Amino acid sequence: MKTEIISIGDELLIGQTINTNASWMGQELAKIGIKNNRTTTISDTEEEIKIALTRAEEYADLILITGGLGPTKDDITKKVLCDYFETELVLNEEVLLDIQEYFKLRNKPFLESNNQQAMLPEKCKVLRNKMGTASGMWFERNGKVFVSMPGVPYEMKHLMETGVFPKVRKKFGLQELAHRTILTHGIGESFLAEIILDWENRLRAANLEMAYLPSPGLVKLRVTSNQGDFKLVNTFCDELYSIIPEYIFGEGTITMQETLANLLLERNATLSLAESCTGGYASHLLTKIPGSSSFYEGSIVCYSYDIKEKELGVPKSTLLDKGAVSKEVVELLSEAIKNKYNTDYSIAISGIAGPSGGTEDKPVGTVWISARSNQQVVSRRFNFGNNRERNISQSALAGFNLLRQLILSEQSNP
Amino acid sequence: MKTEIISIGDELLIGQTINTNASWMGQELAKIGIKNNRTTTISDTEEEIKIALTRAEEYADLILITGGLGPTKDDITKKVLCDYFETELVLNEEVLLDIQEYFKLRNKPFLESNNQQAMLPEKCKVLRNKMGTASGMWFERNGKVFVSMPGVPYEMKHLMETGVFPKVRKKFGLQELAHRTILTHGIGESFLAEIILDWENRLRAANLEMAYLPSPGLVKLRVTSNQGDFKLVNTFCDELYSIIPEYIFGEGTITMQETLANLLLERNATLSLAESCTGGYASHLLTKIPGSSSFYEGSIVCYSYDIKEKELGVPKSTLLDKGAVSKEVVELLSEAIKNKYNTDYSIAISGIAGPSGGTEDKPVGTVWISARSNQQVVSRRFNFGNNRERNISQSALAGFNLLRQLILSEQSNP
Repeated sequence: MKTEIISIGDELLIGQTINTNASWMGQELAKIGIKNNRTTTISDTEEEIKIALTRAEEYADLILITGGLGPTKDDITKKVLCDYFETELVLNEEVLLDIQEYFKLRNKPFLESNNQQAMLPEKCKVLRNKMGTASGMWFERNGKVFVSMPGVPYEMKHLMETGVFPKVRKKFGLQELAHRTILTHGIGESFLAEIILDWENRLRAANLEMAYLPSPGLVKLRVTSNQGDFKLVNTFCDELYSIIPEYIFGEGTITMQETLANLLLERNATLSLAESCTGGYASHLLTKIPGSSSFYEGSIVCYSYDIKEKELGVPKSTLLDKGAVSKEVVELLSEAIKNKYNTDYSIAISGIAGPSGGTEDKPVGTVWISARSNQQVVSRRFNFGNNRERNISQSALAGFNLLRQLILSEQSNP
Repeated sequence: MKTEIISIGDELLIGQTINTNASWMGQELAKIGIKNNRTTTISDTEEEIKIALTRAEEYADLILITGGLGPTKDDITKKVLCDYFETELVLNEEVLLDIQEYFKLRNKPFLESNNQQAMLPEKCKVLRNKMGTASGMWFERNGKVFVSMPGVPYEMKHLMETGVFPKVRKKFGLQELAHRTILTHGIGESFLAEIILDWENRLRAANLEMAYLPSPGLVKLRVTSNQGDFKLVNTFCDELYSIIPEYIFGEGTITMQETLANLLLERNATLSLAESCTGGYASHLLTKIPGSSSFYEGSIVCYSYDIKEKELGVPKSTLLDKGAVSKEVVELLSEAIKNKYNTDYSIAISGIAGPSGGTEDKPVGTVWISARSNQQVVSRRFNFGNNRERNISQSALAGFNLLRQLILSEQSNP
């Protein structure tokens, strides 16, 4: 079975919009065991769309089309689809009611052009769109499936999830896959691969699949059974917790800061931060989480020596003797912020983000992090390399992870 | 003249990597007056690459290929190119020296597989790659140009900028375009279009082109003369400063925070922040700038009432009477942080980021911002709508802009 994505829109070709739709679809297709074999991005002209449809029909069994629909662009794509499938636009009463309701709910005036959106090709099966006014259209010819969807990402995703995936699975007789995604932090892909080599070999011998999905600051391990054998997937994934317990921080799509937030919420505990090199980024990651005010009190971004000294009481002599990037200073910072903001936990981060400021002893990328509870403090030195933005983001994640591990260690050794 | 981009790589098809190369190329091509007409993304198999090359040759005059090169993947793409252009791989001595030098400089071992990267098709013109080990390859046939480049973004960009663009301009006899990009903040595209309608009409009558390029929090206006008439472009762009002075914050690729940073650096002045709803994000944007410690002292992220009260001295009664999101509170916050951190300027931001916390008077998206100097304070209420992440990012930019305008007003009215 072959799949092709056709993305329609000049804004994609000239780089005004990045084609995240195609990558999302590629990812989601992979999860149900379908590989996207080709993506073609074209202008919304009759000629280009016809060429793309003809070639896709020769090549693929499943053709997913996004874009070229909507109140102003509707005409060309729908007209081409009608020509291509030798059918005509007819009024779909149900869709018309949907659209009228959509405008009513949003207190928006219903324009004549919106009526057009209820005109749909007679031969297609209409996929109702509850997130917008452009319907999805499902065509079949000679066992091949074509689906046309609007290009607005959340409308496309809604149609894919509610309409397309279930129908595709049925149409192509796909078994449900069994997946589990384990999230690791603090170890690179190649080192990880070495440690879990034996496990991975056994996993493959048991007919499971495994993919390393690296993204900034973490490596995801996705384990898949194409036979839908959830039990087997679980056996292997559970085993991983005894092989690399120190690197696993979660599963699925959770972020490091969300796992920490959950630990704090479960304990009804509060957190404060003292950030130097991360300059507010760690605080930003926490406050991006809706409801973070339940566990997060605030922080001091102590970018200068002065603020470290005056606001957080680090003695000038310590700053000069040990340097701002030192175990001593981050431990004083984590203590001061915890007391000052009266929280259950604190994290302090101080490092040399670069590009300048490095020394032989402490090159750019050197970062000291201290995490503190009422019982204990743990501090660690890291080196994240030369890139300033990477240093900032890795430091924040490492700080969250250090506190996460501290909290878990207290749970197991009360 | 038609252009096609061919992106090679399974990681793009399955969505593990987003195809930002194609969008960057589309953007940069537009700047030299070339429209990207089609982007095709394929697997790195012989069959797929051959089909794509054949179709592209039928369709386009300029074919830009990325990916499928590199020490492990080299073979297929280069082999297909040799077959396609009926040529053979030969050792390129200069490239071999380049590559050996590349490894020496980085203290990396030179492996046998790296030798392969100096084997290049005899018929191509080699584009030297100073950023990596995979060369660019320029082929010509029947007036059509094919360029193959590695998929690593900074290597591809380096090759495009140093090798491809100058050669393409010469080959296709393109005149150098004259461009200027004006950056605006605080006004939506459609409102902006209305205000500058007359100017835009005159601009088009004068044979200039203009594009609205919206991105989060700003709208860029790119003015282009296809005849390379810099003088005419400058006349129109300069005029814009008298039509919408309050919305223009810079030109080219500078960010809002960089324009503010430059103003502070010019004045040898310092800044502190009190952030509530932005939760550290404004501080993060400033500290992303290398060297920000020269003007930025630090900030207090005062997420809770407690911190606003205890650390920044906002009376509990004011918090209760006026609410944390009020003119009174942000003015107290900007005053307190400025005094506490002893800076020349300060910004305080307090708002309802959502999704919850809104009231009828102050719906989600309501944000109060106060900017302060030694002479004055300006405070303004904004509403950025329902989306939490958007509220956070828009609030930070609006805060920087408010202070930027305050500083400029002091310059003109000393």
